[in-house]
Amino acid sequence: MAHYVAKVVVPIDLKKKPWEQKHPLHNRWHPDIPVVAEVKDGEVFRVEMVDFSGGGITSDYSAEDVKHADQSIVHYLSGPIRVVDKNETPAMPGDLLAVEICNLGPLPGDEWGYTATFDRENGGGFLTDHFPCATKAIWYFEGIYAYSPHIPGVRFPGLTHPGIIGTAPSMELLNIWNEREREVEENGHKSLKLCEVLHSRPLANLPSTKGCHLGKIKKGTAEWEKIAKEAARTIPGRENGGNCDIKNLSRGSKIYLPVFVEGANLSTGDMHFSQGDGEVSFCGAIEMSGFLELKCEIIRGGMKEYLTPMGPTPLHVNPIFEIGPVEPRFSEWLVFEGISVDESGRQHFLDASVAYKRAVLNAIDYLSKFGYSKEQVYLLLSCCPCEGRISGIVDAPNAVATLAIPTAIFDQDIRPKAGKVPIGPRLVRKPDVLRCSYDGNLPTTKNPAASM
Amino acid sequence: MAHYVAKVVVPIDLKKKPWEQKHPLHNRWHPDIPVVAEVKDGEVFRVEMVDFSGGGITSDYSAEDVKHADQSIVHYLSGPIRVVDKNETPAMPGDLLAVEICNLGPLPGDEWGYTATFDRENGGGFLTDHFPCATKAIWYFEGIYAYSPHIPGVRFPGLTHPGIIGTAPSMELLNIWNEREREVEENGHKSLKLCEVLHSRPLANLPSTKGCHLGKIKKGTAEWEKIAKEAARTIPGRENGGNCDIKNLSRGSKIYLPVFVEGANLSTGDMHFSQGDGEVSFCGAIEMSGFLELKCEIIRGGMKEYLTPMGPTPLHVNPIFEIGPVEPRFSEWLVFEGISVDESGRQHFLDASVAYKRAVLNAIDYLSKFGYSKEQVYLLLSCCPCEGRISGIVDAPNAVATLAIPTAIFDQDIRPKAGKVPIGPRLVRKPDVLRCSYDGNLPTTKNPAASM
Amino acid sequence: MAHYVAKVVVPIDLKKKPWEQKHPLHNRWHPDIPVVAEVKDGEVFRVEMVDFSGGGITSDYSAEDVKHADQSIVHYLSGPIRVVDKNETPAMPGDLLAVEICNLGPLPGDEWGYTATFDRENGGGFLTDHFPCATKAIWYFEGIYAYSPHIPGVRFPGLTHPGIIGTAPSMELLNIWNEREREVEENGHKSLKLCEVLHSRPLANLPSTKGCHLGKIKKGTAEWEKIAKEAARTIPGRENGGNCDIKNLSRGSKIYLPVFVEGANLSTGDMHFSQGDGEVSFCGAIEMSGFLELKCEIIRGGMKEYLTPMGPTPLHVNPIFEIGPVEPRFSEWLVFEGISVDESGRQHFLDASVAYKRAVLNAIDYLSKFGYSKEQVYLLLSCCPCEGRISGIVDAPNAVATLAIPTAIFDQDIRPKAGKVPIGPRLVRKPDVLRCSYDGNLPTTKNPAASM
Amino acid sequence: MAHYVAKVVVPIDLKKKPWEQKHPLHNRWHPDIPVVAEVKDGEVFRVEMVDFSGGGITSDYSAEDVKHADQSIVHYLSGPIRVVDKNETPAMPGDLLAVEICNLGPLPGDEWGYTATFDRENGGGFLTDHFPCATKAIWYFEGIYAYSPHIPGVRFPGLTHPGIIGTAPSMELLNIWNEREREVEENGHKSLKLCEVLHSRPLANLPSTKGCHLGKIKKGTAEWEKIAKEAARTIPGRENGGNCDIKNLSRGSKIYLPVFVEGANLSTGDMHFSQGDGEVSFCGAIEMSGFLELKCEIIRGGMKEYLTPMGPTPLHVNPIFEIGPVEPRFSEWLVFEGISVDESGRQHFLDASVAYKRAVLNAIDYLSKFGYSKEQVYLLLSCCPCEGRISGIVDAPNAVATLAIPTAIFDQDIRPKAGKVPIGPRLVRKPDVLRCSYDGNLPTTKNPAASM
Repeated sequence: MAHYVAKVVVPIDLKKKPWEQKHPLHNRWHPDIPVVAEVKDGEVFRVEMVDFSGGGITSDYSAEDVKHADQSIVHYLSGPIRVVDKNETPAMPGDLLAVEICNLGPLPGDEWGYTATFDRENGGGFLTDHFPCATKAIWYFEGIYAYSPHIPGVRFPGLTHPGIIGTAPSMELLNIWNEREREVEENGHKSLKLCEVLHSRPLANLPSTKGCHLGKIKKGTAEWEKIAKEAARTIPGRENGGNCDIKNLSRGSKIYLPVFVEGANLSTGDMHFSQGDGEVSFCGAIEMSGFLELKCEIIRGGMKEYLTPMGPTPLHVNPIFEIGPVEPRFSEWLVFEGISVDESGRQHFLDASVAYKRAVLNAIDYLSKFGYSKEQVYLLLSCCPCEGRISGIVDAPNAVATLAIPTAIFDQDIRPKAGKVPIGPRLVRKPDVLRCSYDGNLPTTKNPAASM
Repeated sequence: MAHYVAKVVVPIDLKKKPWEQKHPLHNRWHPDIPVVAEVKDGEVFRVEMVDFSGGGITSDYSAEDVKHADQSIVHYLSGPIRVVDKNETPAMPGDLLAVEICNLGPLPGDEWGYTATFDRENGGGFLTDHFPCATKAIWYFEGIYAYSPHIPGVRFPGLTHPGIIGTAPSMELLNIWNEREREVEENGHKSLKLCEVLHSRPLANLPSTKGCHLGKIKKGTAEWEKIAKEAARTIPGRENGGNCDIKNLSRGSKIYLPVFVEGANLSTGDMHFSQGDGEVSFCGAIEMSGFLELKCEIIRGGMKEYLTPMGPTPLHVNPIFEIGPVEPRFSEWLVFEGISVDESGRQHFLDASVAYKRAVLNAIDYLSKFGYSKEQVYLLLSCCPCEGRISGIVDAPNAVATLAIPTAIFDQDIRPKAGKVPIGPRLVRKPDVLRCSYDGNLPTTKNPAASM
Repeated sequence: MAHYVAKVVVPIDLKKKPWEQKHPLHNRWHPDIPVVAEVKDGEVFRVEMVDFSGGGITSDYSAEDVKHADQSIVHYLSGPIRVVDKNETPAMPGDLLAVEICNLGPLPGDEWGYTATFDRENGGGFLTDHFPCATKAIWYFEGIYAYSPHIPGVRFPGLTHPGIIGTAPSMELLNIWNEREREVEENGHKSLKLCEVLHSRPLANLPSTKGCHLGKIKKGTAEWEKIAKEAARTIPGRENGGNCDIKNLSRGSKIYLPVFVEGANLSTGDMHFSQGDGEVSFCGAIEMSGFLELKCEIIRGGMKEYLTPMGPTPLHVNPIFEIGPVEPRFSEWLVFEGISVDESGRQHFLDASVAYKRAVLNAIDYLSKFGYSKEQVYLLLSCCPCEGRISGIVDAPNAVATLAIPTAIFDQDIRPKAGKVPIGPRLVRKPDVLRCSYDGNLPTTKNPAASM
Repeated sequence: MAHYVAKVVVPIDLKKKPWEQKHPLHNRWHPDIPVVAEVKDGEVFRVEMVDFSGGGITSDYSAEDVKHADQSIVHYLSGPIRVVDKNETPAMPGDLLAVEICNLGPLPGDEWGYTATFDRENGGGFLTDHFPCATKAIWYFEGIYAYSPHIPGVRFPGLTHPGIIGTAPSMELLNIWNEREREVEENGHKSLKLCEVLHSRPLANLPSTKGCHLGKIKKGTAEWEKIAKEAARTIPGRENGGNCDIKNLSRGSKIYLPVFVEGANLSTGDMHFSQGDGEVSFCGAIEMSGFLELKCEIIRGGMKEYLTPMGPTPLHVNPIFEIGPVEPRFSEWLVFEGISVDESGRQHFLDASVAYKRAVLNAIDYLSKFGYSKEQVYLLLSCCPCEGRISGIVDAPNAVATLAIPTAIFDQDIRPKAGKVPIGPRLVRKPDVLRCSYDGNLPTTKNPAASM
């Protein structure tokens, strides 16, 4: 009786670069990126992955690597993996691919991660108008727990998940993506009047040969040139799943992905030890290398059966998923509200993004009273298991968004009390996050009333 | 030893109109609306309330009352209640008012509620461009559970909460509100390019004498005229809390409200037996009359101590709250994703409202495969304990929002399965929701790919 | 459209004695106790009840009423209620009666309760050999929360439930009960070598005319005499459910009771605002008056279908139940272990009762370090939402039982810390529980090693 | 900056026997078993372990290995590990050793386990009088989930934990153990009148040189002979923790162990992928090899500070622990009740063991209606995450114990329904558990009423 061991279909050697791996990684979505492995319906297999930066961001106690991070190379993905049924018939367009995450975690011997925010001129983050500097915090893992020397006084269990999991797009879907995103890029500043402060960030990230890796396809070949010009960047989540950054896609969850190409061509990467809803600092989960143990099931015709397209073509769908049974358990939450009025006091119309921004800003200022720098809290809220909710979306003109923080992650009681906040913890806990200066020339948003 | 009984400070007689109550109700926010009761720090007291419509929407099996609902009268609130400390010193501007919700529920003998969506020309809802008709479903309560003859096959425990709880604004804050909302109303169509389809809805609801009730102040007097012209409508949540429609403000939760006027002048109303995050159909929780048992604590100077203003004045704050310990427990969730691409296929920029709209549309179409009309699902998702999350807000250009539905509320297994959805349940469950025709002339958004 | 209101089938007037109620209460189990009401399958109805003592124990700040409590009158039950189906056919022996607890709570205006332990010569409790005195603590309710002036520094949400719910036994079953319990009473001291220290307590409580109430049957009649001599006392839980004192039979739970007589003859009583597993102090939950809203379903033949008898007759069955969805949520638990070695150091064999006794004793001594008297902790563990587990029952000779206490109910951090327990809280919190002297002559068990 | 990696202080090579390991294992408790490693306060370290049988029970599809299992060799433990503080001062008697379980799991490549019940004449189990045969089921792991070909139709996430973790006893404590257990062994049948049916099992397991392994101490030496005659067997949990079989000692939990010898001498073993409360079948969890990642903290003087002795000496204490934050989450439970009346109908007095036995028997018979053999259910309840509660321990003469089973682990709805149990699933699911014949001569307990 042979013992059960998950087959490793994509192994990673952390001493090698992403393009030097046994199955070279890719960082674009394209139907013609060659598959590196094949798995069967029902079989448990193991996929290993580098951190999203492929080692570009290190465990050094300096944020210089973050400041100068090459945005063109994100995210290194493992795959594509072709999925076939027990009769060797591949998943076909129109099928649904149910992918169960049987297990996941850091790669053995690499039990650390980082949370960072990019320089405003190099990617930024949700609050980049307030926090333009590159910053970084290193996290160490003690089994299920993470702690950081750069954000003292907090420790929490991980809700570990792959930031990215998705199937390859068909050419038709790829063209849809490239067109609609190009339009935003070209017309953005005219058409996007809301959330204006966010516009310092790149509006979209169109295909680029710079930094492009296509797995087994040799750089510089004609094939490579063609695909690199077409292949979608991995930054946004899309119809194929992709970089959805959903913190609840953890152990035991099951995601139903639409299949657009023969074999499904599943890719995954960007492992997060933990992430808060929104991943607000952008480089914002606890980023790490890791492994997944997966099991696939092909639901024939399931895309048509279960996913109603919502848009001009049958390809305009989104994945659905079931949450797994072993998420960390918290009972006490402190919740911050935000409405769609921006920092200048201007009223927006049912804009949940503005409302959430305000909720996050409120939480940052609140927690900074307990002995943290605002940069520490910004990184913390990006990576700890906090929940971002759309609480009200109909009470014009204000959307109400809420940010719920589990109080048990702190070593002090952070709830309001009738007496004053103790003086002691108001001293900023040291060390602070690692940071670089901001040398750009974009204006920084100040909180007009915070001089008090 | 006298037994404990909560003092009823605002009683309701359901046979009387809102303005005929012992303490006449009000439906505006203004510092000069006279207080109707006084409570002490630490004392448990009971506030009763009518449903938001003050009986305008009835338990009749017809949606005509919804179609012709008078939007000018929402929401009837109980209060204002003045809060003083044990030395009779009132809460003062700059204090924080901690309000614990010790208990709440329907008024005895009135254990029913309704969920509705307004006609598109009379208020609409989050998906009013798809669902322009007035619809209504009646819910009956069996203790902790609600069920509806109009949405067969679901039953769930309530996460009951007041849709509205807030303190009175000062004149300064009131002026801020009126100005910023007027600007949206006046410039809206020029400045609001995102979420365009939502614009058929009222952009804001400015002060209006029509339908105005000011508690003890007699209609038609000079005082009434003055206040009615200034007093803010209650529809949006704002700095004072108000209509935040946060489903988690239930039993045992504690909300920290800023105090803007002497005595705090707490008002509350709009009780919901249950609501989903977003309250998408707008008249959208299970609306009912009810009672609250509250306990207040004054945290002196707490507004400055705990709430950093975020905006041009010290008044630009938001409440915070702690979640209570007895929320319904669910383990299995089916989750729908949405990205900020609209139904026409157009790309928006990190717009969480568009992403959430798409997640809700996806869920509606999915659940309609299990034997429901889309109108049934729209109302259901508005009032059942589903969770709306901002999962990713940084991966330009797509925000990712998710809608998580507890599977245990259905009498069938709604998860995707390898075999097809059973044929039986595809028949629409009867009866359907109550509905009126839509006689307006605004264009309806079709799902271009849903002809299948 | 008539609104939903639960029909009150057993009303209680708290100003009247149990036998003066509209439907006089009963405190025995017998098939011939006349039904007081009839309900239909599927109908929601309301049953009100007095506290188990029928007002004998009061809210006075004295334990004298506990010391001299009349054990012969417990527990006053509401009912019996006859259950029929929609065709008026009654539940029949062999059916299963599914009883859903739609809602429950204290009677309005009577929001208080008590926890007590009886004098050792008058009922005692689980630890009566250590705590022989009668003690009492009064609890007041603030909505979902209870607090006691006699046990300062704790507050918790209730997991409210009826201590007793059951169907009437048939004569055959009643005879089985009386025989087997008589045998214990008669042979107890010979046959019961384990748990010896518990034997100071009454071994069984056989039928007695003293204190007997039989509802509508007039005291002193021949019928009364006959039944009173046969009718089983209500103290132990048995095949019909009865006094199971299961804390999880709360809102939304559903209990499947065997039916032994035509109509089922459902009775209920002994409402508890909250109780810990084991109800160790015996008068040990937060005892109160209250109401239940119930809904019954008759499962024809379900007793045979679902309940395999375990014993010499088909009547030797036990109820099963489903837990409801709104129990209080706790995340952090401090757990005490116990093994089946008694306080004298003697080894018992896989005796879970001894192991649990030791776990409770360990917890009492531990918590007394945080500023409580042992009597305060004994009462607290009896009524707070702590969990008693049989962790190991096979590792001869030791059973391992555990007692898990939610740490969030305390206003201080009760977990062990590297530094010493702060000195301050070691002062016993005042006031202490109310207590009487113990004037009996049974020896008290000392903890031999606790002189330190 | 070196990455974090837990130091492996006890490595296991699964191809070697327990006594051939780099740090030979031991299977007795004794202060003189030599330490094999030293760890520092605050340091995370890794301990690997064999399954309790040291490979004696295999993954073969036969129960012969279970039937003839050598009871004298259980349980192989890893350790002892000496714990010192940052100044190299060892933990001292009277200290408390806080051990955090940072992580744990199966050994890579060995992801399987087994659940078994011993032959009645060779160890038996809680229900050995009903189920005298040796049986076995093999479980395979798919990440967090386990499934068994021998118990089809169930699958559940593991609540993995070490069955055994404890510190070394001092000689004084060891002598206490040996004396009190010898007394049970010698006087058992006279003094143990309750739970008589359990007496076919070994009453205690006294020190024996047979099968004894003492780590680094060479078999046959004088030292070995001396210690082997004194060293306590590992079967029962005791004052030092040991074989407590507490299913909640999982990831993130923290156990406070008393220290009896210099260095604490921590040992651990008997890893369980999952276990139900009680571990009823005795060889009864999902037994496996595995690893622990631990972190120790020495609380100086903490034994006196926090653990009140309960017995004749200061050594009569028990560990306490905190539950970790990532236990599997279940919402729906079906619960079986048991009272202290045995299968012959005889009344016992407040005996929680008898009550729990009845609850387990009730559950077995119930679930066997859904297509399982009783042996399948017996093994399942022993290893699935079910909860055993002491619900009532004071209502003389009946204790009430409950067994709660999470319904989500089944692929069918196991709740009672008004219609009959579907016929289909009544067919026993195949394959059944592996089993041997029972060739002993002890009488088997029949369920007198279960002739159906």
